[in-house]
Amino acid sequence: MINVGIVGFGYWGPNVARNFNTTPGARVVAISDADEKSLQRAAASYPGVRTERECDRLLSAKDIDVVAVVTPVSSHFEIARKALANGKHIFIEKPFTASVAEAEKLIELAERRNLKIMVDHTFLFTGAVKKIKELIDDGILGDLYYFDSIRVNLGLFQKDVNVVWDLAPHDLSIMDHLLRMDPVAVTATGIAHFRNDLEDVAYITIYFPGNVIAHLNVNWLSPVKIRTTLIGGQKKMLVWNDLVSDEKIRVYDKGVDGLDSLNLESKEKAYGLRLSYRSGDMWAPRVTQVEALQGETSYFIDCINNNVTPKNDGHAGLRVVRILEAIKKSLAGGGVLVRLN
Amino acid sequence: MINVGIVGFGYWGPNVARNFNTTPGARVVAISDADEKSLQRAAASYPGVRTERECDRLLSAKDIDVVAVVTPVSSHFEIARKALANGKHIFIEKPFTASVAEAEKLIELAERRNLKIMVDHTFLFTGAVKKIKELIDDGILGDLYYFDSIRVNLGLFQKDVNVVWDLAPHDLSIMDHLLRMDPVAVTATGIAHFRNDLEDVAYITIYFPGNVIAHLNVNWLSPVKIRTTLIGGQKKMLVWNDLVSDEKIRVYDKGVDGLDSLNLESKEKAYGLRLSYRSGDMWAPRVTQVEALQGETSYFIDCINNNVTPKNDGHAGLRVVRILEAIKKSLAGGGVLVRLN
Amino acid sequence: MINVGIVGFGYWGPNVARNFNTTPGARVVAISDADEKSLQRAAASYPGVRTERECDRLLSAKDIDVVAVVTPVSSHFEIARKALANGKHIFIEKPFTASVAEAEKLIELAERRNLKIMVDHTFLFTGAVKKIKELIDDGILGDLYYFDSIRVNLGLFQKDVNVVWDLAPHDLSIMDHLLRMDPVAVTATGIAHFRNDLEDVAYITIYFPGNVIAHLNVNWLSPVKIRTTLIGGQKKMLVWNDLVSDEKIRVYDKGVDGLDSLNLESKEKAYGLRLSYRSGDMWAPRVTQVEALQGETSYFIDCINNNVTPKNDGHAGLRVVRILEAIKKSLAGGGVLVRLN
Amino acid sequence: MINVGIVGFGYWGPNVARNFNTTPGARVVAISDADEKSLQRAAASYPGVRTERECDRLLSAKDIDVVAVVTPVSSHFEIARKALANGKHIFIEKPFTASVAEAEKLIELAERRNLKIMVDHTFLFTGAVKKIKELIDDGILGDLYYFDSIRVNLGLFQKDVNVVWDLAPHDLSIMDHLLRMDPVAVTATGIAHFRNDLEDVAYITIYFPGNVIAHLNVNWLSPVKIRTTLIGGQKKMLVWNDLVSDEKIRVYDKGVDGLDSLNLESKEKAYGLRLSYRSGDMWAPRVTQVEALQGETSYFIDCINNNVTPKNDGHAGLRVVRILEAIKKSLAGGGVLVRLN
Repeated sequence: MINVGIVGFGYWGPNVARNFNTTPGARVVAISDADEKSLQRAAASYPGVRTERECDRLLSAKDIDVVAVVTPVSSHFEIARKALANGKHIFIEKPFTASVAEAEKLIELAERRNLKIMVDHTFLFTGAVKKIKELIDDGILGDLYYFDSIRVNLGLFQKDVNVVWDLAPHDLSIMDHLLRMDPVAVTATGIAHFRNDLEDVAYITIYFPGNVIAHLNVNWLSPVKIRTTLIGGQKKMLVWNDLVSDEKIRVYDKGVDGLDSLNLESKEKAYGLRLSYRSGDMWAPRVTQVEALQGETSYFIDCINNNVTPKNDGHAGLRVVRILEAIKKSLAGGGVLVRLN
Repeated sequence: MINVGIVGFGYWGPNVARNFNTTPGARVVAISDADEKSLQRAAASYPGVRTERECDRLLSAKDIDVVAVVTPVSSHFEIARKALANGKHIFIEKPFTASVAEAEKLIELAERRNLKIMVDHTFLFTGAVKKIKELIDDGILGDLYYFDSIRVNLGLFQKDVNVVWDLAPHDLSIMDHLLRMDPVAVTATGIAHFRNDLEDVAYITIYFPGNVIAHLNVNWLSPVKIRTTLIGGQKKMLVWNDLVSDEKIRVYDKGVDGLDSLNLESKEKAYGLRLSYRSGDMWAPRVTQVEALQGETSYFIDCINNNVTPKNDGHAGLRVVRILEAIKKSLAGGGVLVRLN
Repeated sequence: MINVGIVGFGYWGPNVARNFNTTPGARVVAISDADEKSLQRAAASYPGVRTERECDRLLSAKDIDVVAVVTPVSSHFEIARKALANGKHIFIEKPFTASVAEAEKLIELAERRNLKIMVDHTFLFTGAVKKIKELIDDGILGDLYYFDSIRVNLGLFQKDVNVVWDLAPHDLSIMDHLLRMDPVAVTATGIAHFRNDLEDVAYITIYFPGNVIAHLNVNWLSPVKIRTTLIGGQKKMLVWNDLVSDEKIRVYDKGVDGLDSLNLESKEKAYGLRLSYRSGDMWAPRVTQVEALQGETSYFIDCINNNVTPKNDGHAGLRVVRILEAIKKSLAGGGVLVRLN
Repeated sequence: MINVGIVGFGYWGPNVARNFNTTPGARVVAISDADEKSLQRAAASYPGVRTERECDRLLSAKDIDVVAVVTPVSSHFEIARKALANGKHIFIEKPFTASVAEAEKLIELAERRNLKIMVDHTFLFTGAVKKIKELIDDGILGDLYYFDSIRVNLGLFQKDVNVVWDLAPHDLSIMDHLLRMDPVAVTATGIAHFRNDLEDVAYITIYFPGNVIAHLNVNWLSPVKIRTTLIGGQKKMLVWNDLVSDEKIRVYDKGVDGLDSLNLESKEKAYGLRLSYRSGDMWAPRVTQVEALQGETSYFIDCINNNVTPKNDGHAGLRVVRILEAIKKSLAGGGVLVRLN
């Protein structure tokens, strides 16, 4: 039995607690939150569980194997560092840390002690992302051309992060998982309408090797909620609309074919384009309905029990933080191109 | 009666010819196209009209008052210059010219001779743009926050222009008309998947004074066609979907209110945000169904007869070309910020 | 404090229990279910509550004020009759009873002892139905022309009822509430594809006085889920799509005007129609997001405490059962017209 | 060369004329219309073509091979009878005739003289109906369960026909073509809100052998335009939405399987249902964009030249009229079941 301590019982913590508690082989034994009301809610929901305002005792408790860090990002490093130093595996909210340096230190600390880090990139465990991953890995889409994501809605303004740190970690973790490529450069533009320092609208372009481009549109000031990702490939292209309950993923047999090997007297050839369009059927693969977080906590318990490195480990978290840091730099420089690596 | 000569009878020329011919007070008297087949189609459609492969005679014909330039942009300047030099008013496809310098010369030439230039910013004459203009000018939206437009579909690849020069002139002319603000800087990213020099995917950010930001997403490699514009204002926000036949424009009574004048003990205040969300009804104003080009040609004939400067005159065309030129510079510089003025 | 006993803890019972338990002034004190597993779930969720397989003790328990009957319709009458005989108010699933005769007996029994009956017409407590009711009662729609509802999806096949008794009670209770008119005749067609006696597809027409017509399309064999109701009125018409999260209700300023008082030389007049169409804005009023069942249980407790007759009382339940009975008769007669009253 | 005479140049006649005129091997030589303005439009569009107010000369003209009857249904019989008597093939608007008796007489007349009748069931020549026909004939859908069609919009009220004769011929001709089954009974309900004799809302149920049921919902008073058909089959089910430009047809791998051959201890078996649901991918086959009427006129010319009986011949027209007549009888009898054959 793996014993879990939860640090942070605000908006997301209760979900993490519930899912660890219903994962076979795991149970929640302690919950900590600085806010008294949150602590009372925790006590009411989990009568047999220790609750404490300070997390330090939890971080060093002998009976705890895993610490789940579900606090604002600014506090991640310090809490995770102590937990790792005390020999605990950590499950940690995204974004992993507030800086690349912090992420690297945590990874090093964990690896030295053979502890697991799982960054809560929940979307990786949804039926939709699993299906898209399968389509890409099976070569159904062919070589990728672009990844274009829109994640906009009205609010929620955050106290200490801008719209990029609030919304983009979702898309960045998904993109990292699906593309498995290291970006070469990032550029970001945006604007803050209400407070000078925190953008509420931002646009991010990420360049990858081989002419692959990604773009994220994140916005806290949209009257409508949009969660749509277009992925263009050489063989097929797909649209993922996460807001519909059925047919979330649509795969289009559409694309562009090079004509260099053909001997055509077409308008295209005359135009020197040597390209033609393909337009065929559309197909919406069935997407399994699962509670993503349940899949993720179960997977983490499996990783610990079998000493397996999770796909969403500290390095995955670091890759996301590295892009976030580059975006920050680009925004600060008025949209300057920031090279990575 | 105003006599019109049409230069270019390819894809769009027949529409221009038809609409001038059905505009009261105007008639088409000559059509020129370098392509023999296009010329034959012109002759078949307009039996009484002169057709010629070379446009020079048309440009200097005594009986012609207006020259409609419906050719690729690279030829605009030379044709328009000759027409103006011969004392003809010009109706000219967008983008107006291939460079700012060309546009400025044509404007100067026209103004010196008191000739009219109308750049074919057709969208300004649609029911949808007219209605949005009305909503903005009447203060319904309040101060504007952003203008965010997506114009993507599969192809059409062009011989000599990239996706920006192909698609963005639509959005830029609409944006210029609706916002009536001079942009201060532009940054653009994009990539060419098939030919090194011509981008097929591009993302453009335009900064305006007063924290107004615009963004265009143009893409020739999308499996689905999207024509959606979000406009965020302080009082209301709207979504314009040009692909639906009904309810193209949706106005949302949603937004963010500053709370500085209020005395709240809210979570938001505690968070130092002093902001609250407003979420009310949605309203889809009726949009008149009109043939935009017919409205535009009629308006041009009126402008000539009454010596009125069109709203979509050479200066409007120049403003669009100036942004296109800045985008080109930014793309060439790897997304560098290009300041305007 | 009003004490509630729950009879039936299958699919819907847990929701009823939870909502009564969180209603101020009420608490669940006993739960009964013939199924051992359901009973174990009840015991786990409500540690302090009595659980029993037989409901008889619950129905006569001195400390119980309200019995919630959440069992299949075939058992409603007997359970409700005993509860009323023992002086308990009843909250009862829809459809109220399996026959008009049963409903009339329960109403009589309750009225004789001044006990409340509330039939669980949950939809009446949704934000959408409340808003539509308001629009109709305020005269916004004008005189009504028709009520046309589609409620189709794949399954769930029921053991002992056809698609009409499974799905139509929703629409019938909504229709009864919104129209407040007594139907004059009913006709129904349908077919059973899997078992001879239980229709899985059915179409129902209901005639009201004053040329008002209603139609229900219920289907267990649809590949897509549709929950759409059109309501046509003389002044405005509305479409209610219950499957979208925003803009569930759209009110159209569209309709037909009589022209008898006008002096037109129109095509319509020539045609002897003397009618014209009106087509204006569309408007989506904000619909409050509420848990309908919570609103309903609170309302029931209020009705009991203040001795008020609920709008969804036994008579409302009876009106729905009367139409269901007529539909059954029409189906049995091959679509014969069945007159009511 | 086959010479065509057009009788009726109102709303649809110009389309018929244009398509016959652009069909290789055919040309329009005469047009007749009682309305002077329509005749002037015809003369302007077809300078070399004879135009006449009375159709009698056209019906007997020696140089005419085909008469296209594009007039209101009440005049169909007399015009078609004369044309056939004069040895002309006829292309005739739907519905074929105002009664079964008329249709039978025309068919007999044509067959005696070996003349072709083509009833203008245009939808049969659309890419969507062709694709659905293919899916059904190839057994993709399996045995059919139901055909459920909605065709509603605001207006257009007709002078002399109700909503059934205006809108249902579309669905009936499509249904007849796709199902190729003879209906056994019809029942219809409806109501007239503006004129006592002409229904503006109607609901039609049609019973076929083998537990196949069809339903049509036609309505002139809907604020929104809907053109949706659900077809349920044993293997797959489809939804055809004719108002979208892409993905008009969606084929769902959903359905119900009998479990009689399985040995399950499932809840379903316990319930005595022995059924399970299947829910898999969705697939939107590419639908070719064609001008249906052009395909139809070309096909008619082919049928004449090769002496082939068209699929949409007089018998197809008669089958539709027979159902329309049954609907009329059912409506007149207050929804009474009308048996066919």
